[in-house]
Amino acid sequence: MKRLVLAVALAWLTGAGSAVAQTPAPAPAAPPPAAAQPTPVAASAAKAITDEDLKSISGPKPEDKAKGDPAGTITGTVNDIPVSDSKKGLALDDLVNTVGQNVIAPNFIWTLITGFLVMFMQAGFAIVETGLARAKNANHTMMMNFMVYGVGMLGYWIIGFAIQMGGVAPNTNLGGLAPLNHEVAISLFGKNWGLFGTQGMFLGGATYDVGVMVMFLFQMVFMDTALTIVTGTAAERWRYSAFILSSLFMGAFIYPLFGNWAWGGGWLATLGASYGLGHGYCDFAGSGVVHSVGGVTALAMAIIIGPRIGKYSRTGKPNAIPGHDITLVLLGCFILAFGWFGFNPGSTLGAATSGNLRISSVAVNTMLAGMAGSFSGMYYMWIRYGKPDASMTGNAFLAGLVAITAPSGFVNPMASVIIGLIAGVLVCLSCEVIERKAKLDDVVGAISVHGTNGIWGVISVGLFADGRSNYAGAWNGVPGSVTGLFYGDAGQLVAQLIGVATLIGFVFTFSFVFNAILEAVWGHRVTPEVELQGLDIPEMGALGYPEFVLREEAATV
Amino acid sequence: MKRLVLAVALAWLTGAGSAVAQTPAPAPAAPPPAAAQPTPVAASAAKAITDEDLKSISGPKPEDKAKGDPAGTITGTVNDIPVSDSKKGLALDDLVNTVGQNVIAPNFIWTLITGFLVMFMQAGFAIVETGLARAKNANHTMMMNFMVYGVGMLGYWIIGFAIQMGGVAPNTNLGGLAPLNHEVAISLFGKNWGLFGTQGMFLGGATYDVGVMVMFLFQMVFMDTALTIVTGTAAERWRYSAFILSSLFMGAFIYPLFGNWAWGGGWLATLGASYGLGHGYCDFAGSGVVHSVGGVTALAMAIIIGPRIGKYSRTGKPNAIPGHDITLVLLGCFILAFGWFGFNPGSTLGAATSGNLRISSVAVNTMLAGMAGSFSGMYYMWIRYGKPDASMTGNAFLAGLVAITAPSGFVNPMASVIIGLIAGVLVCLSCEVIERKAKLDDVVGAISVHGTNGIWGVISVGLFADGRSNYAGAWNGVPGSVTGLFYGDAGQLVAQLIGVATLIGFVFTFSFVFNAILEAVWGHRVTPEVELQGLDIPEMGALGYPEFVLREEAATV
Amino acid sequence: MKRLVLAVALAWLTGAGSAVAQTPAPAPAAPPPAAAQPTPVAASAAKAITDEDLKSISGPKPEDKAKGDPAGTITGTVNDIPVSDSKKGLALDDLVNTVGQNVIAPNFIWTLITGFLVMFMQAGFAIVETGLARAKNANHTMMMNFMVYGVGMLGYWIIGFAIQMGGVAPNTNLGGLAPLNHEVAISLFGKNWGLFGTQGMFLGGATYDVGVMVMFLFQMVFMDTALTIVTGTAAERWRYSAFILSSLFMGAFIYPLFGNWAWGGGWLATLGASYGLGHGYCDFAGSGVVHSVGGVTALAMAIIIGPRIGKYSRTGKPNAIPGHDITLVLLGCFILAFGWFGFNPGSTLGAATSGNLRISSVAVNTMLAGMAGSFSGMYYMWIRYGKPDASMTGNAFLAGLVAITAPSGFVNPMASVIIGLIAGVLVCLSCEVIERKAKLDDVVGAISVHGTNGIWGVISVGLFADGRSNYAGAWNGVPGSVTGLFYGDAGQLVAQLIGVATLIGFVFTFSFVFNAILEAVWGHRVTPEVELQGLDIPEMGALGYPEFVLREEAATV
Repeated sequence: MKRLVLAVALAWLTGAGSAVAQTPAPAPAAPPPAAAQPTPVAASAAKAITDEDLKSISGPKPEDKAKGDPAGTITGTVNDIPVSDSKKGLALDDLVNTVGQNVIAPNFIWTLITGFLVMFMQAGFAIVETGLARAKNANHTMMMNFMVYGVGMLGYWIIGFAIQMGGVAPNTNLGGLAPLNHEVAISLFGKNWGLFGTQGMFLGGATYDVGVMVMFLFQMVFMDTALTIVTGTAAERWRYSAFILSSLFMGAFIYPLFGNWAWGGGWLATLGASYGLGHGYCDFAGSGVVHSVGGVTALAMAIIIGPRIGKYSRTGKPNAIPGHDITLVLLGCFILAFGWFGFNPGSTLGAATSGNLRISSVAVNTMLAGMAGSFSGMYYMWIRYGKPDASMTGNAFLAGLVAITAPSGFVNPMASVIIGLIAGVLVCLSCEVIERKAKLDDVVGAISVHGTNGIWGVISVGLFADGRSNYAGAWNGVPGSVTGLFYGDAGQLVAQLIGVATLIGFVFTFSFVFNAILEAVWGHRVTPEVELQGLDIPEMGALGYPEFVLREEAATV
Repeated sequence: MKRLVLAVALAWLTGAGSAVAQTPAPAPAAPPPAAAQPTPVAASAAKAITDEDLKSISGPKPEDKAKGDPAGTITGTVNDIPVSDSKKGLALDDLVNTVGQNVIAPNFIWTLITGFLVMFMQAGFAIVETGLARAKNANHTMMMNFMVYGVGMLGYWIIGFAIQMGGVAPNTNLGGLAPLNHEVAISLFGKNWGLFGTQGMFLGGATYDVGVMVMFLFQMVFMDTALTIVTGTAAERWRYSAFILSSLFMGAFIYPLFGNWAWGGGWLATLGASYGLGHGYCDFAGSGVVHSVGGVTALAMAIIIGPRIGKYSRTGKPNAIPGHDITLVLLGCFILAFGWFGFNPGSTLGAATSGNLRISSVAVNTMLAGMAGSFSGMYYMWIRYGKPDASMTGNAFLAGLVAITAPSGFVNPMASVIIGLIAGVLVCLSCEVIERKAKLDDVVGAISVHGTNGIWGVISVGLFADGRSNYAGAWNGVPGSVTGLFYGDAGQLVAQLIGVATLIGFVFTFSFVFNAILEAVWGHRVTPEVELQGLDIPEMGALGYPEFVLREEAATV
Repeated sequence: MKRLVLAVALAWLTGAGSAVAQTPAPAPAAPPPAAAQPTPVAASAAKAITDEDLKSISGPKPEDKAKGDPAGTITGTVNDIPVSDSKKGLALDDLVNTVGQNVIAPNFIWTLITGFLVMFMQAGFAIVETGLARAKNANHTMMMNFMVYGVGMLGYWIIGFAIQMGGVAPNTNLGGLAPLNHEVAISLFGKNWGLFGTQGMFLGGATYDVGVMVMFLFQMVFMDTALTIVTGTAAERWRYSAFILSSLFMGAFIYPLFGNWAWGGGWLATLGASYGLGHGYCDFAGSGVVHSVGGVTALAMAIIIGPRIGKYSRTGKPNAIPGHDITLVLLGCFILAFGWFGFNPGSTLGAATSGNLRISSVAVNTMLAGMAGSFSGMYYMWIRYGKPDASMTGNAFLAGLVAITAPSGFVNPMASVIIGLIAGVLVCLSCEVIERKAKLDDVVGAISVHGTNGIWGVISVGLFADGRSNYAGAWNGVPGSVTGLFYGDAGQLVAQLIGVATLIGFVFTFSFVFNAILEAVWGHRVTPEVELQGLDIPEMGALGYPEFVLREEAATV
């Protein structure tokens, strides 16, 4: 037995050195990996592993560590595993619990950092919208975009998060989310219909929990993305105080309700488990939850607040009102594309185990669809109007990103390109319809980018999901992989269309009614004098660019 | 024995498949996690695990890997564990050392990426400061902010890092930091008082070490944040050459000294272990170390360099000098908020083990406090002056972030909101005092944002720390959780106040004396002619915006 | 046997609690890590570890989890290890496979997030180039930079990636990349010369694989960095349609071919294994592959397209044409520096195992070289022309970053500073030669920043590589560490010079011939009328800044 222990107890330094020398280089043309292939063994050769074997594994010595480790070969060893009893040394449960910690820590890292990227999208939206507005409203447009982050966060922290995610546990990626354990549901047609959650108000009580905090951060930044869509449509005429009230309500109630139904365990998510409609409503990263909710609310606002003075001639012909800074607009699109790498790939809520390595595929799908959208939109404009319009190319790029958001986790690269190509044309057509047929003034094209293409993204899941993903083997409680009509599951498309109907039927109505009431009791729109002067001085007390000389005509359009 | 081995040796592909199918989905409404719950066992069923069992675990076959893995279910298996002896196959020490590596690698990833985010804050500071300056000084303000990154880095690489962190080992999160092993201390009142470290000059010798490099990168970007605070206060009149000399000294000596005392094992950190004052001076991410040091140095510079021409009328009445680009200012605030997700959560220096999963709580606290600050500051200005001022709202947002920096790791969400609310009002009051009472000209409000609120942040740890954090069960060598006055530990508040006294008494004095000497021998301020013309052409040789037409009055204020 | 099982089966909650209390704090002055040191044991004390021991390790109970975990001490435990058979509980292969997953997941996270940072560099390039152009071409310059991302991606997705990386497997960091398994090679002088890969067109078939997707994303964003270099040189006169065709070809063929030779297992990479020249051509992150390829293509374009109207007087004297927005230029440099933390450290393609922890050293080297470049360039200009020029300081900063790109993984901090110092002067000298001797008009200095310093970076590997790195003990299939001339390996320098010769001889020629053909059949340059007016209206249909009044002289230079 003693010899057995000794035979297994190899010094780490020696072991590590040879490991490094014999495992292959990360560079190309290296020898194949020294995989741990099964070796036929004689039973008599097998030696039992003992607790002493574990304890006796030695890491690098302190005197060697003190000499420095430029190559990183003696850092990150047995020495770095926490032991529960330092006198006894490394025990099996130390090892096993550390393996579990090593699953959760990368998942936290992934979800937090991608959440940070999503938060940074606020900067992108801010300068896209401001660049597409006129210089006289720059301060006001920036401030709406700046404060929407805080306004939404406030409403979401108070109540919104609890409504949306208060009943979402269990979630394996983030360690369980056990405190988020109460969803209010009603029984309809013999099935439970989840309506809203209740845990997590103010992040107090049991929800003061490291896993819940990850979820809150990630969901919060998504919510704010939805809210900032509306400011783009209603820019250059929205009273700042009305904007705050409207956004607060949206962050506290409108967004979280649909969010609960789709992502929080509510009735849309369980359409599959309850009624056999595919995997229920599937919206990987929120073409519907975030973009369509923002887009239909923007549509409601555009109807209520009306077009800017000068947008339509007396005969109803629309006038182009160009943005004041194209550099800002396209810089903003880049920031958004950067942030979308958080938005979509981060929506796995983890990287380790459960098939989460598909984050790479999600990221590639995202950028391919954005690329495809920018191409089809650019060429559509080029062919139709003779020039490759920068603003519409940017919008078409965003349209591709919006459309791929829902399907990004379920489709392959070729499908992503097709989805993006359609999105790029769709946004141009939608903008024309909104501007010319509906006579709605959408300053940045947000209704078309986020509303129309958000819906297209939701539908595309039901068409293109290829049944190759495997997020722990189930999605929304239905075993097997999400599969669309083109790969054989018509039920999935039905679930998606129910989601679309809910967006148009419920979310639009709810937003419209609330904002119409706000219009009646508070008023959304600044006076014509303020609008003509520009909102910066009357509403915010300072010009955006007080030193730059602006063209007369621009200032008085 | 042979049967035993065979019984344990299951093919991975089969196993993985069923694992995936049976573990729950990341989506809501999934079945509970298939946790490894203890199972009552008959002793006779227990089979010893042997070295052959380890070797015989088989990963996916090469021919299956070559078919592609769209779902990520056969990537990341036993095959990916490095083996020290490829002939013998996977051994216990391979497994165990890889678990240790899997602790350190996420910690490196976390600390590096959050460090990158902090570095990016330089861009945020640059455009906030430039946007708040006048167009005629845009090139000069940008160049100060651009080169402060390099100037600080130079001083820190030569000597500053060694002073601050040269005696900080051991640190478990980054693998030990063994080469940083010498702190110069004096004995006072029977205790050791650490004064400065000595290891790490030029990152040479033993400090050419992967762990030390992580620490250098993270600390370096923090140091530069402190330095760039000063350029905001002294903008529009600071000689470029004097700025370089002043910043070099600050990065090499002023910042690192206080940094050592607070974070490098110096006497402030050991106030708890030595004198029983709570956990010693606790400054999670540097409200004091970074922001107050920057702020009090900015205060010293404001006194020495004097106000801009035109800032005060002959009667001493302050004139508002609006910034030239509010879009830049608020874009910069967003970049800073994005970077603050590195600043605070990254200050754990790790994500795996030791209670570091609290990174999520730190991140949420950070954004809640920023939100709260922006609200209270905005409404303070709105109520007091009739308009929600954009610049002050941005500053109040930053004030909330500054204030939460020290307590972010120790407090709960509700306390974070309270700390932020106070910060947002405090920054407005402080700006009024600085401008009207002290007659100091602080171009961007940096003294109030970073100095005043940095001190508020340091104090708030001593009030609001709730005793729920657990960073490996100890902080600054004192077992138990950091706890403030409101949760029962008055000693912690005393330690914090000693830190504040040191900032005001020592750091301010040191900065003032050095910069006063520099004023005498070199001169900080440009000539009145240069200042009136704008510093761009005389100091930098080119205008910031050579093609744009500026208003006459703006150019000659 | 039963007692043995019981003795090992400790409750996790108890164990974890004491672990936390006894392991050291991340803060300074903490006690030394409770390392698992080998303990001399009596053989009789050793207890065999059984499968029941594994199963019986218990995690936190559901009721405790539901109370919340603010400290992160009961999240990330045995409970979070997926089990393949939930009835049987945790088995050895579950544990071992999860350890393998925990190697790959951080590697995916690292490579993806650093890839996202590289993508964001497109934003930096866009505003650096636009800021250095004139306002009348802002829309056009932004649009080239915006669409180059999509144009390059399209060509790379169709064919470029397959050419470059289609034969690169095996790669241990990303799980094998088994589907990328065919490189076309010819036999020359008795050795195989890899010419191009074939797998991965459209990311279809077997390359629909999570590992391949990571590789595609990371390589794609690198390729786009090379392409965007050319737009900077040819700005303010390049027909938009010609830019699209030229960039598409470059992304599909020019870049991928050299990329294959250097990084895809091609003949430059195997110069070491085949001919004993050091480790073959070594280019850690692409001073050659990315920057020189971009730079020599930019040189070809500068020759073909000719200087802007007004750049040279009739006597051939160059006129300075200042950029319109220095704030944008330096903001762009910051974004690039931020992205470079992805570019270089990400090029390990992993963080865990194989010596990849050296990512920290790569990051520090990168920022030190950038700092050194900005200093030497700034002082060169200051001394030579009397003022510290902002544009050239920015370019010198970038030059330092370009130069360190190839050696960043192989050199120490001091060498990085030296490489950067040389780069900062070199870029100034190169700009003078290009502008005054060669009479080539390079709007942003891209030939000097990326071409000249890219070559300097490639050469510097052959001089300064210090033989201390250890990427799994081999690089390009040659055991041992990459070592330059100053550390004893002259062969490495030869390999680097062969790379340089290939860049100048092959890549430049290939680019020149293709673009010369494009000039003949399509035409690169806009008409003089369009150029004088500015390209914004004629080419893109809208001004970049329609409301701002520009100086007359600026508009008509």
